[in-house]
Amino acid sequence: MLLPLLRSHPLLHHAARLSSPRTRLLLRRDAIPLARSPPIRMAASSGSGASSPASAPPAAVVHKSKIKFCPACGSPTKLAIPDGDEKMRAVCSSCGRVHYENPKMVVGCLVEHDNKVLLCRRKIEPAYGLWTLPAGYLEVGESTAEGASRETLEEACADVEIVSPFAQLDIPLIGQSYIIFRARLKTPNFSPGPESLECALFALDDIPFDSLAFSSIIVTLRMVFPPP
Amino acid sequence: MLLPLLRSHPLLHHAARLSSPRTRLLLRRDAIPLARSPPIRMAASSGSGASSPASAPPAAVVHKSKIKFCPACGSPTKLAIPDGDEKMRAVCSSCGRVHYENPKMVVGCLVEHDNKVLLCRRKIEPAYGLWTLPAGYLEVGESTAEGASRETLEEACADVEIVSPFAQLDIPLIGQSYIIFRARLKTPNFSPGPESLECALFALDDIPFDSLAFSSIIVTLRMVFPPP
Repeated sequence: MLLPLLRSHPLLHHAARLSSPRTRLLLRRDAIPLARSPPIRMAASSGSGASSPASAPPAAVVHKSKIKFCPACGSPTKLAIPDGDEKMRAVCSSCGRVHYENPKMVVGCLVEHDNKVLLCRRKIEPAYGLWTLPAGYLEVGESTAEGASRETLEEACADVEIVSPFAQLDIPLIGQSYIIFRARLKTPNFSPGPESLECALFALDDIPFDSLAFSSIIVTLRMVFPPP
Repeated sequence: MLLPLLRSHPLLHHAARLSSPRTRLLLRRDAIPLARSPPIRMAASSGSGASSPASAPPAAVVHKSKIKFCPACGSPTKLAIPDGDEKMRAVCSSCGRVHYENPKMVVGCLVEHDNKVLLCRRKIEPAYGLWTLPAGYLEVGESTAEGASRETLEEACADVEIVSPFAQLDIPLIGQSYIIFRARLKTPNFSPGPESLECALFALDDIPFDSLAFSSIIVTLRMVFPPP
């Protein structure tokens, strides 16, 4: 039967949402440039930090569009609600094409080695000089796991094997959705790529929680290392 | 310590990839219009069907762009490799902006009720007349769980509570990444929305595996109902 099969499966994730006070605490050093403290909603393989299921959705609102001109024909767009839709979209004033704006996926790795985790110190803005997990935007043509491996190779020159998904986090306000994978080094070699000042393995007591680049990285590492 | 904590956690997902023969079998009725049988890579809460971890990534290749004109200024774009990049991008010939093309996220619900699962028969192309889980593109401004709930409300007029993430699947060739959530009906009511011909609850023996709309839906339902 369906329900017993699903309910007894040991690998199911918990959908969860950070409570507001903890979210504010975790976001106080947020360095994402488009919005200082966007709320994070998460569904993670760790149950720590939250226990209530996600509730009913609020309506998504798009008041303006970054798509001022039609990418297909170059004519100006206008904001309109297309037939059968409920939201304002950028619609071409000439060819009538509707242009949607969708969230971007960020994929990255929680690389474990010798009971430590691999972090990179950013050589680029935003958050220049702060520490992060190797992660970046997913590209067309690659899977999420492949994208996470590629970003780790680019940012830390580290060749990794993906172990499993670790956490999925959403930052709706800026249209980002993260999937972070657990990974291990195929060889014990890493070095800073062009976008990193340095890369290093950190043990539990040495994680630079005061110098992390993004709220998403703080949340992810707090799932590995819960505060005392 | 880090490794024991991670390795012993009961809720971790398995990253997995469908083996080729099974992928071909599952994709034989694929109805995704942009590519008849795109390979699916998946990371799912069910370990069935695959056991090997994801391997090293192939390079993502973008040979052409759908962005012929700059969405910001309307000038023609050209294909070029920007400084510090390794891939061809659409670059504005006038203002120099680089326009990236990223995968889209599809979110949906596996709604369980009375040991049955809720399916919708599509009233729109592609795959008109075939059955699917309620799912659609994630919008900016909503979390993945909120998007999955919204799509279920729109396509099946069903008000659901998200229980947990169930499966994450990638279709790299067409730039889609799915997250399917387990969900339950808040009230035992549902009816076809504007994009559905009908909605119905199906028990194990009644799932219309010969009339499912998309390979991603076949793969997801096969994780719930493995073939004998």
